[in-house]
Amino acid sequence: MTAVRALRRQPKVAVIGSGSWGTSVASIIARHSPTVIWGRSAEVVDQINTGHTNERYLPGYALTPSLTATTDLARAVEPADILIMAVPSHGFRGALDDLAPFLRPWAPVVSLVKGLEQGSRKRMTEIVDEVLPGHPAGVLAGPNIAREVAAGYAAAAVIAMPDQHLAAQLGELFRTKYFRIYSSSDVTGVEIAGSLKNVFAIAVGMGDGVGSGDNTRAMVITRSLREMTKLGTAVGGQSETMTGLAGMGDLVVTCTSKFSRNRHVGEEIGRGVPVPQILAGMKQVAEGVKTASVVMEMAAEYGVDMPIAREVDAVVNHGSTPERAYRGLLNEAPGHEVHGAGW
Amino acid sequence: MTAVRALRRQPKVAVIGSGSWGTSVASIIARHSPTVIWGRSAEVVDQINTGHTNERYLPGYALTPSLTATTDLARAVEPADILIMAVPSHGFRGALDDLAPFLRPWAPVVSLVKGLEQGSRKRMTEIVDEVLPGHPAGVLAGPNIAREVAAGYAAAAVIAMPDQHLAAQLGELFRTKYFRIYSSSDVTGVEIAGSLKNVFAIAVGMGDGVGSGDNTRAMVITRSLREMTKLGTAVGGQSETMTGLAGMGDLVVTCTSKFSRNRHVGEEIGRGVPVPQILAGMKQVAEGVKTASVVMEMAAEYGVDMPIAREVDAVVNHGSTPERAYRGLLNEAPGHEVHGAGW
Repeated sequence: MTAVRALRRQPKVAVIGSGSWGTSVASIIARHSPTVIWGRSAEVVDQINTGHTNERYLPGYALTPSLTATTDLARAVEPADILIMAVPSHGFRGALDDLAPFLRPWAPVVSLVKGLEQGSRKRMTEIVDEVLPGHPAGVLAGPNIAREVAAGYAAAAVIAMPDQHLAAQLGELFRTKYFRIYSSSDVTGVEIAGSLKNVFAIAVGMGDGVGSGDNTRAMVITRSLREMTKLGTAVGGQSETMTGLAGMGDLVVTCTSKFSRNRHVGEEIGRGVPVPQILAGMKQVAEGVKTASVVMEMAAEYGVDMPIAREVDAVVNHGSTPERAYRGLLNEAPGHEVHGAGW
Repeated sequence: MTAVRALRRQPKVAVIGSGSWGTSVASIIARHSPTVIWGRSAEVVDQINTGHTNERYLPGYALTPSLTATTDLARAVEPADILIMAVPSHGFRGALDDLAPFLRPWAPVVSLVKGLEQGSRKRMTEIVDEVLPGHPAGVLAGPNIAREVAAGYAAAAVIAMPDQHLAAQLGELFRTKYFRIYSSSDVTGVEIAGSLKNVFAIAVGMGDGVGSGDNTRAMVITRSLREMTKLGTAVGGQSETMTGLAGMGDLVVTCTSKFSRNRHVGEEIGRGVPVPQILAGMKQVAEGVKTASVVMEMAAEYGVDMPIAREVDAVVNHGSTPERAYRGLLNEAPGHEVHGAGW
């Protein structure tokens, strides 16, 4: 239970990325370990250092006073025993390249990122393995709306690392009485689940935007989970991971919270707002838009039929409409719940 | 796809029970098959026959005009080729006993009931097998808030029968363009999932009632699904059924809809209202209260640890409080997501 705290010296932690989730996590870790957060914005960094808040990405929450921030990557990374990555997926490889010269050998790297690299279709820990070979790479994911975790509401996440001892140790970094960290060895499954859920959150949001009911939402979530499980297991993840905190748990919170970015995108689409206009109006990235096209490539590669994801991709990337998407889905006759073709 | 419609003679259908769900389902079936609904209340029956509405249980919805109603069990049952059971679980066996003398041999029986018999711990189709041996027994379940299905919002359910041909045929009875009926052979799983979800809906409602966040709700749903899967597979159901429409799907709708009775019970408990007072104020049965104690007996019998269900049972049946329940759960350290002990 207090594995990290039992280390002879408290590990020093660097969190790369000062968005809402990176800031929340850094603030938790800073309660018991020396923690520095790196951010691109001098304004955000100043505010964390002097006011102990991040009004841009986490307005209204008091951060742990010992948390410090810097715009200087070398200063953040050089002392770190543990590296936490909290940048959007499209900046993940570049950030690793930039920080690699400063990182202490063997320091574990934990990704908080829910997305896949466009082009390579790689998971974030695969990018870590490429750019920083020899560094143990893991992922933390779950139903974690940042402002609620920051506010101390009870929540849970799963940390997946190949080494279960390390997973349990690192889990202690994040753990509080109200933030429950489960462990897993299924790194692939947790990353795929976390990425796919963003695509399905857009599907659910579109349904809400066009005025569907609660039954409709539950149906889309349930059938999305089946698609997620089909692709997730095809690429090597475990089905229990898809139905766990990083998959279903995160999908559910997305659909019950007003604060989900990907659901918000879907909802606006459902209301008729053009996609570029929605994205232009957002302060942070909605990973599901880019992930949708990557997912369709993977579905083709693995021969998995994913009608819900396909309709999302058609709408967000190929000019279809939510009405056409839902009409197409409803025209397809249902079959056996588990073994049937289609959705 | 049109198996039932392709029968040489349209089957006659009797629906036993005129609550919100029985009425919704009867109204759907009446669109294409001669359907009579049996109800205890002369007032409700009169209203269905003359006004084509059920203002008591489904206020504001226009029913299919050809749907007829009666308080006379023999009149409802004698012509029926298919029997649909929509009474609360505690009245299920008695209703079957009463109607058995009138039922045509071999007529299939489909249960819409989500509960287990107290004392015997039997599923509804097991009761059908006992009281009406030789009649094929199945179950229809899913995320189906009655008034939304009645209003024509898109929804889905699963029908489970041992005979897949019959399941597909009967599925056609219920199917509309907007009500998708999947088939399954896992009768045990669908019935257990549908029963257990009511218990976990109370847990989620309690959390909402005491003011938990969206993350908390998603955590409780996800970990509840794991408990449901542990017990469901122990008694012979399939894990895919637990993560399907009758399990997770129904649990999710319960937690996203204002109209769920079991969640309502939990929410009121969370707000500090005594359980007897909550139950006294409800027009229809919240199955989860009684199911909670049955589930704890089954958990003991099968050696399955179910901390969330146990806390619900402690609150609704043994005088504990939601604060104590949540505090107890949060004090328990998390372990491996899939293989860990505890919740």
